[in-house]
Amino acid sequence: MHTSTEIGSVDLADLRADLPDQMIVTDPDILAGYRQDRAFDPTAGTPLALIRPTTTEHVQTVVRWCAAHRVPIITRGAGTSLSGGSTAVDGAVMLSTEKMREMSIDTATRTAVVQPGLFNAEVKAAAAAHDLWYPPDPSSFEICSIGGNVATNAGGLCCVKYGVTTDYVLGMQVVLADGRAIRLGGKQLKDSAGLSLTKLFVGSEGLLGIITEVTLRLLPPQASACTVVGTFSSVHSASEAVLAITARIRPAMLEFMDKVSINAVEDMLRMGLDRDAGALLVAQSDAPGPAGVAEVEIIREAFESCGAAEVFDTTDAAEGEAFTAARRAAIPAVEKLGSLLLEDVGVPLPALPALIDGVGRIANDNAVMISVIAHAGDGNTHPLIVFDPDDADEHDRAQKAFGQVMDLAISLGGTITGEHGVGRLKKGWLPDQVGPDVMELTAAIKATLDPDGLLNPGVIL
Amino acid sequence: MHTSTEIGSVDLADLRADLPDQMIVTDPDILAGYRQDRAFDPTAGTPLALIRPTTTEHVQTVVRWCAAHRVPIITRGAGTSLSGGSTAVDGAVMLSTEKMREMSIDTATRTAVVQPGLFNAEVKAAAAAHDLWYPPDPSSFEICSIGGNVATNAGGLCCVKYGVTTDYVLGMQVVLADGRAIRLGGKQLKDSAGLSLTKLFVGSEGLLGIITEVTLRLLPPQASACTVVGTFSSVHSASEAVLAITARIRPAMLEFMDKVSINAVEDMLRMGLDRDAGALLVAQSDAPGPAGVAEVEIIREAFESCGAAEVFDTTDAAEGEAFTAARRAAIPAVEKLGSLLLEDVGVPLPALPALIDGVGRIANDNAVMISVIAHAGDGNTHPLIVFDPDDADEHDRAQKAFGQVMDLAISLGGTITGEHGVGRLKKGWLPDQVGPDVMELTAAIKATLDPDGLLNPGVIL
Repeated sequence: MHTSTEIGSVDLADLRADLPDQMIVTDPDILAGYRQDRAFDPTAGTPLALIRPTTTEHVQTVVRWCAAHRVPIITRGAGTSLSGGSTAVDGAVMLSTEKMREMSIDTATRTAVVQPGLFNAEVKAAAAAHDLWYPPDPSSFEICSIGGNVATNAGGLCCVKYGVTTDYVLGMQVVLADGRAIRLGGKQLKDSAGLSLTKLFVGSEGLLGIITEVTLRLLPPQASACTVVGTFSSVHSASEAVLAITARIRPAMLEFMDKVSINAVEDMLRMGLDRDAGALLVAQSDAPGPAGVAEVEIIREAFESCGAAEVFDTTDAAEGEAFTAARRAAIPAVEKLGSLLLEDVGVPLPALPALIDGVGRIANDNAVMISVIAHAGDGNTHPLIVFDPDDADEHDRAQKAFGQVMDLAISLGGTITGEHGVGRLKKGWLPDQVGPDVMELTAAIKATLDPDGLLNPGVIL
Repeated sequence: MHTSTEIGSVDLADLRADLPDQMIVTDPDILAGYRQDRAFDPTAGTPLALIRPTTTEHVQTVVRWCAAHRVPIITRGAGTSLSGGSTAVDGAVMLSTEKMREMSIDTATRTAVVQPGLFNAEVKAAAAAHDLWYPPDPSSFEICSIGGNVATNAGGLCCVKYGVTTDYVLGMQVVLADGRAIRLGGKQLKDSAGLSLTKLFVGSEGLLGIITEVTLRLLPPQASACTVVGTFSSVHSASEAVLAITARIRPAMLEFMDKVSINAVEDMLRMGLDRDAGALLVAQSDAPGPAGVAEVEIIREAFESCGAAEVFDTTDAAEGEAFTAARRAAIPAVEKLGSLLLEDVGVPLPALPALIDGVGRIANDNAVMISVIAHAGDGNTHPLIVFDPDDADEHDRAQKAFGQVMDLAISLGGTITGEHGVGRLKKGWLPDQVGPDVMELTAAIKATLDPDGLLNPGVIL
C-alpha cells in the first residue's frame, strides 16, 4: 500500500485517457463524502480518487490500472455498510458502482439481470411491475445497493421464510484482481457444473473480485399477509413467544423491538405504539386461505401463552406495513439518541432468550444503553449500543460492550454477523468464531484470487 | 500418482495400526465392487484399499497417511454417481462413507446433523418422525447418500419450488487435504461471517476436502399435494405446456417423460400408463386451500391449451405418489433397454422446447435411441442415450450423441449438468461451458486447498 507521500506520485493521466471524461473525481470535497460508510469509522483514510464506472469494461480498466500501480481498490455500492465494509484507505481508488444502473427483467425465466448500483427497492419495483417478487428485504432496502446486498449476503425481514440473498443469486459477472472479467452461472435454475464459484463470491465483501452484474431469481408475487402484533412486559417473555411460534410454523416475518426502540420509533413516527411495553413482536403469515388462518391462530396462541398484554391482528395491508415500517425505522430512530455501535449477532434459535438476556446484563455491567431489535424468527439480533461520542469514558464502555456481545454470541454457538458482513469493525472477533484453520483457509483463498491484496484491504482479514 | 508397480510398495501396516481392525479392506473381490459407480466407467482403476471410517478422526488419520505417502483418495458415498464422480483410480484409497451413519434431529432449530453415509431417504424419514421435512429428493433418494448429495449439490423433483441441496446446507465439518478438520457454519439460519466456504464445499465433488458431517435445514412438513397428469401427442407440445405453467405459477413438481420412458416404465410397473402417448407430464401443487385449487386449474388449462389428449387430477396421496414413482423409475426402466449414457443438461426455461426438439434431431442424426425424461419445471433434462455395448459402431454413435447433447445445451445458454455433477464423464465439456478463465480459477482454488492433487483426481479437472 502507498503511504501518503507515495500517493502524490501516482499519476492518473493514463487512467483518465482510458476512461470517459468526468468518470474520475479528485475534488477533495467530493472525496470527503466517500471516505466513510454508515459505520462512520473514524479511522477511514483519504482516497486517491473516486471513480464511477458504468460498464464492466470500465471496471476492468480501473482494476488493470490499479494492479499495474499497486493501488488498492475499495468497492462501494450505496455506502450503507454498517460494518465498515466500504471504508476508504489512504491512497485507494474508491470505486463506486452508483452509476451502474442497468437492469432487465426476463419474465420467461423469472430472472432479473441487474448492475450492482441499483437500489434493492428498484429491483423489487421492477420485478413487481412484471407481477414478480424479489424477496430479500434489508431494512435499508430503499437506500442500499443490490451489489452491496450480494457482497454481504444481506438478509432482511422476510428471510425467516424466504431465505437470504445467496438463495436468489443464480449467476454473475465478476472482474478479477488482474482485470479479467468472468461469467458464472446464468439463468438456469439448477447448475452443478464445476465449483460453486457464484456462491463463493456472494458474501465475499469485495475481497475476491468486483461484481459488475448479477442474475437474480424472482418469485411469483407474495400472497397477501396477515400481520399479528403483540406487546409484552419483558424482552424475555417476547423471546419465549418467538420460540413458541417457530416450534410450530415458519412465519413470513417475525420481528422484535425492545422498549428503547419502541419509544425511539414512537418519538419519530407518532403512530401510537405502547410506550410502556417491554417488547413488541410483529409477525406475519402469508399462507393462503385456511392455512393462513391456522397460522395466525398459532401466533396469537403463542403470544397469549407467553403473557402478551395485547394482541392485535390485521389483514389490512397498509396497517400491516405500518408496523413493518416501524420496525424498519428502529435503527435510524435509535440513532437519534446518540452515536451507535451496531451489532448483528445471530444464534441458533433456542439460544435467543439467553442472547437477549445476556445483552441486558452486558448493558448493566458496562453502564451503557443497549437497545435490541431483531429478526427474531431466524435468531438474528441487532443490539444497538448507544453512546455519547463526546464522553470518552462512555465511548470506552460502549466499545467494551460491543466486544462482549460478540463474545456472548460466539459462546452460544452463534455468529458475529448474520447479514451485515464482517467489514472492518468485526474482524477482530472473526477468528474467535471460526478458528485459526478457517482463517488460514480464508487467507489462502484471498491470496489465490488477489495475490497483491489490492481488493478491499482491511476487510475480513 | 503411483503406477501399479509403485503401489505394491506402499505399506499399509502403519495405517492399520492407527485404525480399528477390519476398517481397511484389501480383498480383491470386495475391492472390485468399489471400482465403479453407477456411471460404470470402463476405465476405472484398481484401488489399493477400501477404508470404511466411522468418525471424522478416522478420516483425518486416513488423509494424513495418504498425504504422507502421496496416495490419492477417492471419496465414495453410496456409489450412485451417474457421472463417474466416485470412480477408482489405480493405487488410490477408496474412502467409503457408508459406515458414517450417525444423525441427530434438533426440533428447536429445525436442523439435522448427519454423517455423510446415510441415505437421503433415511434423513427424510428421521425428519418426518419429528413432523419435519428435508426437501431435496433425487430420484435415487432411497439409495443415494446424503454426503454424495452435498458433494454434487444434488437436485430432484421438488427443487422446482423448494430449491436444491445447497439451499439446505447450513454448516459442515470437512477434513482438508492435510488432515485438519474444520467446522463451517452451524445451526444459525443466517451467517455472513467470512467467506461463504460452506457453499464452496457444496458441489465440490470431493476435490477440496472430505465432508464428514453436515448440518441441514429442515422445513415444516409439506402440505398435501394435488397431482395433475397430462398426456400429449408430442414432446414438443408437452414442453410448451411446461412453459405455459411456469409462466404463471411455481408448481411443487413438474416432471416430463417421453414415449420411450413411458413404455419402459409400463413394462416394469404395469400401472396402466398410456403407451401411445408421445409424452407425459406429472405436475403437483401443494398450495393450501383455494390457492391450490387455483393452481390446479392453471395446470389443467395449460395442459389443455397445449393439446393434452387426457388430463387427470387427484388429491389422493397414494395415487399421486404412484405417478411420481413412475417418473422416478424411468432411469432404471430405460436401463433395461440397453447400456445408457446419461445426460443431465439444463437450460433456461424458454429454451426447453428447443433443447428437447434438438435432442430428437441428435438421436436421428446419429441413429441412436435417446429417451428424454426431465425435471421440466426447472429446465433440467435427462436425455438417456441407449446403446448396445456389444455394438462398437452404435457405441461410437452414442458417444458422439453424448457430446452433441452437451454442445446443444451450452449453445442454448445452459449447463452440462444440473444436478449430477461433472465427475469424469463430463469434464471434457466443462471448459466449453464456463470458459478458460473459470477453469483456471477452479484449478487455482483446487491447488490452494489440495496442492498435491490427491483428492478425487480426475474429477472436474
